[in-house]
Amino acid sequence: MRETENNSYATVDFQRLKRTGVAEIIFGEGKDADTIAGVLSQLVAAGQNAIATRVSKEKAEIICSKVDGAEYFESSRVLHRPAGEWKELGKGEILVICAGTSDLPVADEAADICWLLGNRVSRINDVGVAGIHRLLKHEKALKEARVLIVVAGMEGALPSVVAGLTDKPVIAVPTSVGYGAAFDGITALLSMLNSCASGVSVVNIDNGFGAAFQASQINRLS
Amino acid sequence: MRETENNSYATVDFQRLKRTGVAEIIFGEGKDADTIAGVLSQLVAAGQNAIATRVSKEKAEIICSKVDGAEYFESSRVLHRPAGEWKELGKGEILVICAGTSDLPVADEAADICWLLGNRVSRINDVGVAGIHRLLKHEKALKEARVLIVVAGMEGALPSVVAGLTDKPVIAVPTSVGYGAAFDGITALLSMLNSCASGVSVVNIDNGFGAAFQASQINRLS
Amino acid sequence: MRETENNSYATVDFQRLKRTGVAEIIFGEGKDADTIAGVLSQLVAAGQNAIATRVSKEKAEIICSKVDGAEYFESSRVLHRPAGEWKELGKGEILVICAGTSDLPVADEAADICWLLGNRVSRINDVGVAGIHRLLKHEKALKEARVLIVVAGMEGALPSVVAGLTDKPVIAVPTSVGYGAAFDGITALLSMLNSCASGVSVVNIDNGFGAAFQASQINRLS
Amino acid sequence: MRETENNSYATVDFQRLKRTGVAEIIFGEGKDADTIAGVLSQLVAAGQNAIATRVSKEKAEIICSKVDGAEYFESSRVLHRPAGEWKELGKGEILVICAGTSDLPVADEAADICWLLGNRVSRINDVGVAGIHRLLKHEKALKEARVLIVVAGMEGALPSVVAGLTDKPVIAVPTSVGYGAAFDGITALLSMLNSCASGVSVVNIDNGFGAAFQASQINRLS
Amino acid sequence: MRETENNSYATVDFQRLKRTGVAEIIFGEGKDADTIAGVLSQLVAAGQNAIATRVSKEKAEIICSKVDGAEYFESSRVLHRPAGEWKELGKGEILVICAGTSDLPVADEAADICWLLGNRVSRINDVGVAGIHRLLKHEKALKEARVLIVVAGMEGALPSVVAGLTDKPVIAVPTSVGYGAAFDGITALLSMLNSCASGVSVVNIDNGFGAAFQASQINRLS
Amino acid sequence: MRETENNSYATVDFQRLKRTGVAEIIFGEGKDADTIAGVLSQLVAAGQNAIATRVSKEKAEIICSKVDGAEYFESSRVLHRPAGEWKELGKGEILVICAGTSDLPVADEAADICWLLGNRVSRINDVGVAGIHRLLKHEKALKEARVLIVVAGMEGALPSVVAGLTDKPVIAVPTSVGYGAAFDGITALLSMLNSCASGVSVVNIDNGFGAAFQASQINRLS
Amino acid sequence: MRETENNSYATVDFQRLKRTGVAEIIFGEGKDADTIAGVLSQLVAAGQNAIATRVSKEKAEIICSKVDGAEYFESSRVLHRPAGEWKELGKGEILVICAGTSDLPVADEAADICWLLGNRVSRINDVGVAGIHRLLKHEKALKEARVLIVVAGMEGALPSVVAGLTDKPVIAVPTSVGYGAAFDGITALLSMLNSCASGVSVVNIDNGFGAAFQASQINRLS
Amino acid sequence: MRETENNSYATVDFQRLKRTGVAEIIFGEGKDADTIAGVLSQLVAAGQNAIATRVSKEKAEIICSKVDGAEYFESSRVLHRPAGEWKELGKGEILVICAGTSDLPVADEAADICWLLGNRVSRINDVGVAGIHRLLKHEKALKEARVLIVVAGMEGALPSVVAGLTDKPVIAVPTSVGYGAAFDGITALLSMLNSCASGVSVVNIDNGFGAAFQASQINRLS
Repeated sequence: MRETENNSYATVDFQRLKRTGVAEIIFGEGKDADTIAGVLSQLVAAGQNAIATRVSKEKAEIICSKVDGAEYFESSRVLHRPAGEWKELGKGEILVICAGTSDLPVADEAADICWLLGNRVSRINDVGVAGIHRLLKHEKALKEARVLIVVAGMEGALPSVVAGLTDKPVIAVPTSVGYGAAFDGITALLSMLNSCASGVSVVNIDNGFGAAFQASQINRLS
Repeated sequence: MRETENNSYATVDFQRLKRTGVAEIIFGEGKDADTIAGVLSQLVAAGQNAIATRVSKEKAEIICSKVDGAEYFESSRVLHRPAGEWKELGKGEILVICAGTSDLPVADEAADICWLLGNRVSRINDVGVAGIHRLLKHEKALKEARVLIVVAGMEGALPSVVAGLTDKPVIAVPTSVGYGAAFDGITALLSMLNSCASGVSVVNIDNGFGAAFQASQINRLS
Repeated sequence: MRETENNSYATVDFQRLKRTGVAEIIFGEGKDADTIAGVLSQLVAAGQNAIATRVSKEKAEIICSKVDGAEYFESSRVLHRPAGEWKELGKGEILVICAGTSDLPVADEAADICWLLGNRVSRINDVGVAGIHRLLKHEKALKEARVLIVVAGMEGALPSVVAGLTDKPVIAVPTSVGYGAAFDGITALLSMLNSCASGVSVVNIDNGFGAAFQASQINRLS
Repeated sequence: MRETENNSYATVDFQRLKRTGVAEIIFGEGKDADTIAGVLSQLVAAGQNAIATRVSKEKAEIICSKVDGAEYFESSRVLHRPAGEWKELGKGEILVICAGTSDLPVADEAADICWLLGNRVSRINDVGVAGIHRLLKHEKALKEARVLIVVAGMEGALPSVVAGLTDKPVIAVPTSVGYGAAFDGITALLSMLNSCASGVSVVNIDNGFGAAFQASQINRLS
Repeated sequence: MRETENNSYATVDFQRLKRTGVAEIIFGEGKDADTIAGVLSQLVAAGQNAIATRVSKEKAEIICSKVDGAEYFESSRVLHRPAGEWKELGKGEILVICAGTSDLPVADEAADICWLLGNRVSRINDVGVAGIHRLLKHEKALKEARVLIVVAGMEGALPSVVAGLTDKPVIAVPTSVGYGAAFDGITALLSMLNSCASGVSVVNIDNGFGAAFQASQINRLS
Repeated sequence: MRETENNSYATVDFQRLKRTGVAEIIFGEGKDADTIAGVLSQLVAAGQNAIATRVSKEKAEIICSKVDGAEYFESSRVLHRPAGEWKELGKGEILVICAGTSDLPVADEAADICWLLGNRVSRINDVGVAGIHRLLKHEKALKEARVLIVVAGMEGALPSVVAGLTDKPVIAVPTSVGYGAAFDGITALLSMLNSCASGVSVVNIDNGFGAAFQASQINRLS
Repeated sequence: MRETENNSYATVDFQRLKRTGVAEIIFGEGKDADTIAGVLSQLVAAGQNAIATRVSKEKAEIICSKVDGAEYFESSRVLHRPAGEWKELGKGEILVICAGTSDLPVADEAADICWLLGNRVSRINDVGVAGIHRLLKHEKALKEARVLIVVAGMEGALPSVVAGLTDKPVIAVPTSVGYGAAFDGITALLSMLNSCASGVSVVNIDNGFGAAFQASQINRLS
Repeated sequence: MRETENNSYATVDFQRLKRTGVAEIIFGEGKDADTIAGVLSQLVAAGQNAIATRVSKEKAEIICSKVDGAEYFESSRVLHRPAGEWKELGKGEILVICAGTSDLPVADEAADICWLLGNRVSRINDVGVAGIHRLLKHEKALKEARVLIVVAGMEGALPSVVAGLTDKPVIAVPTSVGYGAAFDGITALLSMLNSCASGVSVVNIDNGFGAAFQASQINRLS
């Protein structure tokens, strides 16, 4: 028999909740339904919130049949099984702004994760910079949010405009929306990193989860 | 003696004025003052407008001392020696919009070339997207121009916003302004190519001349 | 229930017709047939021209069965439902030149959009630079057009040659045609941005629509 | 006389203090000493804090001789002229962590800007991941800060390790330190964007200022 | 008949065992089951160990039905048919460390090849740098191994941390795990090449085999 | 009815045989079987050799059923229908050298095109630089060929070694063989462009046809 | 004393003349005048032609003062010291075509090396594709040459046009001429690799020497 | 006074000798002579070997005047001050192979570091793959070394050939030697990562030090 076999694969890091204030969250892409269901079940057993991202509809159906109380958000591909009642943990509201309709899945992931981590969330959609007046109608909302997540593909210009209209931190999420020289989100990513507005930081392409996680950390600051 | 020597280097293409409506224009970068002065003199002798771009101040002083009537625009590095009185050849006005003060040399090149090719030019400066209200004050001007040239570095978002506010053609010029992931203008270039606004076309990085040339072609259309 | 849900997705921007002279046009890629049919129907109801680009044949069949009077152009993947009789809105003719037979879908998109926006269109096909004499036979046509759209993949050299033969603006469209170091259109894009001919501006890879939109803006200038 | 000349270049945006809570800050790179001194003087006259970044020692000497009360921080290349006494505006402490000694200028810029914007700052230096025990000695400090800025070049791994040890937001700053395949900071930038730790967002290469600005926004949240 | 036909395709290099101490190993990707089975059979006939890497489960089933005694390791996609009893040829133990569960197939390939080449192998899994304490628990193991193979995707930071904790050679294997700006392993590759720790060398993305081969060469040194 | 329709698509360039000595050759990728069969038939009708490259097996079956006398070479994906007897048009022999078995389809394309264009062809396979002695056995053949085509993927080192062993021109063909940092042939391409041996020129990735075409031009020189 | 010192650096490969028909040629960039002079002197002593490329004017003056009979071509930066009378070794004429005046140093290098290797050379300059008629005047010359070298920067389109007008091999040399998205010759290089004309092969950016070497090999074929 | 100032910059890690078997080595690039001299002096005081790499001649002179017993190797830019007599710590010999004369500074760095770390070193120079026979003369030496370091620029093919001739580990060092598409060593780096020979690992471009460090670790294995 092969000596190199792995008998004890990934185990759940139950200390993470204590260390970072948030239980382990599963990145579902590239993992099969059984693996995801297994980790979720361990979290449930430990009385922790169980969340998985990037779960396809097919996998979600299998997982939901195995994990009691699991709920699937199709638009954001987020699957979760709460440990108890939803409880507000943030101090203010996180505003998720989305440039185009094709960017919505990423914005949905950001919004759902924010909410699951205990934050109130508001949304503004379809405010690409080519129709700047649509965005300007929301100036008051931009000022009232405690943290802003701005999701955009193509030229990724929206975070710069938003950051110029608020004094709150803006987390920019480039999306892989576009074609040709959009290079699967690289153009939007570079654009956001070079924002002429101060107060913008950036996460990986399509990483709605990462933006939500940091926004939630900021919103929990007392 | 070496047989491969070149005795008859570049000669001026005097037919170009007839063929394309504009006399040959010299790209001064990488050419020495004598060469530039020589070509300008031939154009003068042929009764054609003589224009050179990307001429450093040092070279310009030498050339001006050799070519009678030559004038140098330091901010745009354009040097010219007109064949006669300035004559309007365009039908309307070309509007040159510039995002940041560091982008001004490129905007100046665009504006100077437009004017030397017989177009009226108006200018709007320092209207980066991080201060969107500054741009919106000029909405009327955006609508009145016949062609618009929009110059921006860093995230290069300005052309998208401008194109959403006008029904006239927008020619976008990315500049090499920025640092780090601006990649000497690549980010601005990619951003402009992926504009979410319709009606934007793009020229090479820092190519104020190219934008002006095409804007002038458009403005001459009757 | 999840608080973050989006109830009011993308709504049609009916003011765009007034603001930019052209009703909203739908980018069909990545949108499902129902969504496209929905937006088209709203435009029809508002008495505006309804156009969608990048619509696959499969989606087109569904949409045409739902939107009365809709017509599908398979070669260009453009689907439209006119608000009334075709009416010329341009002052002259737009010439669409295409390098190779593989570039035809992009050239077709450009041509169809030009026509749908109210422009007369003429076409020249299969005039790659490797057979330069084929192009030169058309010199008169190059001079007579009011605006030129030049579509090419691989080394993307055609716009440079064309721009040297006319005094009208040339809008270059790189295509993703080629293999290996063609890099899905990057080579053609870079080539066109570096054209040694004056009077060339460039749009995104395969963006026949964008070239047509700007050509139409130019052709409407009075 | 040339009609295209610019008579009214960049003017200071005095409303920015009110709109975003921070007076305009000047990016000194590529601007000459006179221009910088001019803008600083206008801010001083308006009773606002005057700060310029990326000012070389040579320029700083000229500016300090012209702007009364100006002070220059050589290690960070930050120059400032305060409007009054330093006043704490943040709620907690910002911790600036620096991987290697070559990254210090960027970390210094971050720290100085944080302090000038009214935040208490603490520092940890020389804690590259190749000597992980040096970092772990500071675990308590990592948990006590309200926001963390982590500066690293080469493989840019430090933010991932730090974010795993704290529940506070981490803003990562890649530096252009390294050689060969470090590609002037691209490797560190990409590494940080792909952090396996949650709670990391990223700014442009060498952008200590940008990280400090956002950290200050977060630290001001009440 | 075509004169150019190839009658004698690839033949096995039986001298390799003598020249390099290891019999030829087949790279299975892009080769069909019959070809792989054929080469394996020739090696078996010659009394040499027969190993193929990157063999899909489907091909493996066909090959195992044709090559007597062949065994398939599904997790690593390695297929082998030993020439005799397993015999230790290394002097010490090779330690294979793996950052995340998605990197396991590459780590499994490394481990299986090490073992098949006659080395004892130990494993440490799921020790990404975001949970640095998990790795530190294994400090003793890091020091006891004779050679270390470190497998990681995303930001690829693990080899730097490991190399700082041992005086033995570390061979780093970047994996294509990640999304967006992970660029299919490029980020991890660049990160590892720029390690701030001394004693790290790198192989191609996902090249568990290559790391194992060199680790085995090192471990055989007497 | 749409005015923009194309009625007269690509027509065959029958003058090419006279102008360049070779009849038009069809690039089959992205063209459907009917189109290819149509062009081949026109060439047959004109009494010219009819050749198509990059024809899949599926298309080939359809084409062969429509074009009398057509023959398909599956390994090289070349399909042809000769105008008459094969006739030698070259002065010497073209040697096609192939590094690995995975590179064979490209080498086969090169060899088949050489032969169809009237050249004698010899072949050397499986002589990658990692087993340099296998190549050196063929030193005499390297010196006797009139032109050499060298096909290699991965690190693309073979042309440099070959060019150091002959005084005849070497045309290098990079292939897309490899994985990870092979980047679909980019590494091999760059390697060949930087050959330390004099006398190497390069064609596009996987462009066996292009290498064969130029080798044939050279071999026809009298 | 350090044991690792190198006492016997590079020695001249005197067998190369016999093996490849051409004596060793020195690449002068990055070597100091003394080293170059030393190698040239050894070649002279051995009765072989001594040639060095990429020699700056400053170094050339030193070398010429040390190597009797050495001659320097400033425009091409080639320095040589012939072993005897110039003797024709080629069968026909090599034609060197140059797109723009800025590309001339590279074309000069190609032409001078061709001549020094015993080939008759003719030249056509300043025939960029934007003025296609200038090139077409030379159609007869294109057909009469035995080999063609085509030198171009910017969009690098000239080789495609030339190859369509001749049945002889075309060796394309991209130059680093251009700015912005010319990327120091990458655009021209990619363009040439993707030529839509058959019969083009490519050498490294600015590698006039390499093109000349292969052209000379081809021209010597009897 | 500024609160953010750094009073205690980088301190020497004296435990490293114990932890990794080698005292801290200073990377001299970007550090001034005083800083380097300071760290060296601390190491000397602690009775440890003091080594700095990438020290320019100018800095070396200052440092040597301050640090008693310091010696500078100009060709490799390595500066050291031994703690005592040179003592062999390796079990066998490290062979440093260098492709071209321009690669020598990197090979010299590798060789000098190997020796300073207690290894016997042998050298083979000027054995580029274009003259493969020069390398083959050394076959015996290739087999006798315990570890091999192979240094090459341009196409970086040498490690593949060497690894095919030995059963010992090969560490490949790409250099930034070359021009145009050599991209400052990227081509050589990619080439080495894609070696078709087993048993090659790679370090950063020009990182002779890194290769030497790992080679020394391997050579110390008992």
